[in-house]
Amino acid sequence: MSAVASKGAVALRAAAATACREKQRRQERLVEAVGSTGIGSGRRHHGRLSPPLPLPSVYLSTSLLLLSRAFIVGEDFPPHANDCCFFTSSDLQNPSPASPNPRYTMLKVPDHQVAGHQADRGKLGPLVDDSGRFYKPLQSDQRGDTEVAFYESFYSNTEIPGHIRKFFPGFHGTQIIEASDGSGPQPHLVLEDLVAGRMNPSVMDIKIGSRTWYPEASEQYIQKCLGKDRNSTSVSMGFRISGLKVYQNSEAGFWQPEKKVVYSFNADGVRSALRKFVSSNLSLDPDADPDCLYASTVYGHRGGILAQLLQLKEWFEVQTNYHFYSCSLLIFYDTESALDGRAHPKVKLVDFAHVMDGHGVIDHNFLGGLCSVIKFIRDIVDEDNKCAKCEVNLGLKENGFYKSNTEIELDYEAS
Amino acid sequence: MSAVASKGAVALRAAAATACREKQRRQERLVEAVGSTGIGSGRRHHGRLSPPLPLPSVYLSTSLLLLSRAFIVGEDFPPHANDCCFFTSSDLQNPSPASPNPRYTMLKVPDHQVAGHQADRGKLGPLVDDSGRFYKPLQSDQRGDTEVAFYESFYSNTEIPGHIRKFFPGFHGTQIIEASDGSGPQPHLVLEDLVAGRMNPSVMDIKIGSRTWYPEASEQYIQKCLGKDRNSTSVSMGFRISGLKVYQNSEAGFWQPEKKVVYSFNADGVRSALRKFVSSNLSLDPDADPDCLYASTVYGHRGGILAQLLQLKEWFEVQTNYHFYSCSLLIFYDTESALDGRAHPKVKLVDFAHVMDGHGVIDHNFLGGLCSVIKFIRDIVDEDNKCAKCEVNLGLKENGFYKSNTEIELDYEAS
Repeated sequence: MSAVASKGAVALRAAAATACREKQRRQERLVEAVGSTGIGSGRRHHGRLSPPLPLPSVYLSTSLLLLSRAFIVGEDFPPHANDCCFFTSSDLQNPSPASPNPRYTMLKVPDHQVAGHQADRGKLGPLVDDSGRFYKPLQSDQRGDTEVAFYESFYSNTEIPGHIRKFFPGFHGTQIIEASDGSGPQPHLVLEDLVAGRMNPSVMDIKIGSRTWYPEASEQYIQKCLGKDRNSTSVSMGFRISGLKVYQNSEAGFWQPEKKVVYSFNADGVRSALRKFVSSNLSLDPDADPDCLYASTVYGHRGGILAQLLQLKEWFEVQTNYHFYSCSLLIFYDTESALDGRAHPKVKLVDFAHVMDGHGVIDHNFLGGLCSVIKFIRDIVDEDNKCAKCEVNLGLKENGFYKSNTEIELDYEAS
Repeated sequence: MSAVASKGAVALRAAAATACREKQRRQERLVEAVGSTGIGSGRRHHGRLSPPLPLPSVYLSTSLLLLSRAFIVGEDFPPHANDCCFFTSSDLQNPSPASPNPRYTMLKVPDHQVAGHQADRGKLGPLVDDSGRFYKPLQSDQRGDTEVAFYESFYSNTEIPGHIRKFFPGFHGTQIIEASDGSGPQPHLVLEDLVAGRMNPSVMDIKIGSRTWYPEASEQYIQKCLGKDRNSTSVSMGFRISGLKVYQNSEAGFWQPEKKVVYSFNADGVRSALRKFVSSNLSLDPDADPDCLYASTVYGHRGGILAQLLQLKEWFEVQTNYHFYSCSLLIFYDTESALDGRAHPKVKLVDFAHVMDGHGVIDHNFLGGLCSVIKFIRDIVDEDNKCAKCEVNLGLKENGFYKSNTEIELDYEAS
């Protein structure tokens, strides 16, 4: 596979342009004939709603691509709120051009996106539906084509072991839906919504590699990336944190530092953020020493983040098919269940708009950065293990969890 | 440790300048009083020889530095042949300023250097003596100071495991000796001559890391390195071959491609060079498919190159003290003994003029490149193992070695 645009994605763009023209004509007819209706919902419902049209959807099949029409229904263009709602046809797994009654699913801005282009405030960004799908606008400048080509290649590559596939989002082809910025029908990647079903996950996006540019890129692109890499921790640490949010409790909600704060992290900032990511005491004072209360459950657990990263590392030591430039590790867990050991920590890889052919060479750039992340997390786990031993010895912790003050007092009285 | 110049190295330079002035005065006196003698030897002996002067050597002690005076004796300045000879005081391990009769050792241009500045043709480069020491001129522009500082730090760091120290050249301080370019007494690092005692070793120098520049370097230096990294395999493969020589037999001698050929290697060139490095059929046609006759003995052996690289990798996954920019792996073995399993393959790290403080972060740049080298070598070993199985099955190989034609014929007759 290379960065060359897939034919499927090119066809998709042409179809989107046609769909856009059709939509304009339909909307003109609708204004005359139907008027506004009450279909759709949204906490911030400002504008009139347009019903989904009972026109048969148009499906174009291109290799692995699954292409359908979808419509934004229920909002002004462009939408102006995070929780605005859109609709798309949801019967995509078994598309039938003759289907007379396609079902429509609500689309909304993802609640837990911490990095990348975001669809709020009328901008172009990804959307999610309530069936666990994530709709990512196909980027221009070949980036979208490269990402589609990667997913096609990856999911048709029989050499990828099953335990490695689980690190990648599920891929459901592409689909034309109304873009979140109101620019009309646009092709989107249809992916697995990685945090679907999680109430208040803590999420961190880590861009891996000391170099986000690839040798074949344009000089302008290389200089742009090089500048960002040098001005962040990428060059010095082999990775940079692109965003994070850490759930504290129902009252305080999430601790989520601003983008400019995250971008200015130095090595100490990164180290601290990786500790805060598994801490419970940020709501009182985010600058306080993080308690790393969930370190063992989230990072150090047998199936935890560290174990998953080590599994991924093993693959990167031998795989020579792909070089993942500017790709991110997404790590997340269920904070609310972390104390009773059901944090369900997960590692996923996302953003493949700059994946290149490995040409028989391992992805040393990604692997080096991954090993650097692993070392930071391992240090936190080791430190936590040391503390745990102390705390068990001191009677502060039992079965890996902190005792309440009452329990400690009872222990003391019983001793 | 940082790139900041060690005070010791600065003092050393000042001492060298003084020594240079003293030498000039002594030479003027010698011309009048002593004249030429017959001391010293060299296959290309062109000039008159000057005896070592019985003046007491000057020793300056700076932390771990061991500093003495030494003199080139026996050649014109500058020398014009690879095998020109120099002399230096060799009683450095127990320096005594009052020693009335310092012994002097012959210095010569190393026979098996494949990369870096070389002392032939009157240029400044390293020299070796016959006691197994390697004298490397202390480079200017802080590079020499950084290298001294690294050796001081490394050998005084009690956290470095013993099995890791063996990958680094022994360090015997610094010493002022006559520079090979005739520029007078200059400070030199005194290191272990890694290939001392080996008759016809095959040697390869591999510069590790996709990035040879460090964040704190000057813009000019960064751009220079970046250009070299992009124009070689460093960026794409995480390493580049800087030089190699492969011994064939007494008649053909070494196969040693020219520098410009080595510098122009692409991925296929590197793959081929790593195969040729363990091959015996280069003297007939260097472009023929390499036979990889020594692959199992040199790369795949229990204590072979691959095993050593894996040991080194383990350390790089955890060590956060040093970042090794522009540092090389030197791999070598005794070709003449390779067929009977006594190749004594070795991996060493050399060139620490750009080692920086790790600031608690692993050297992801070096580690990534190292893993890339490992993958290439592992592929050759795996391929060789497959061939070996075929050959054992076909009766061509026994106990890992090829049978002679006679043995095969006898097997055939006995069957």
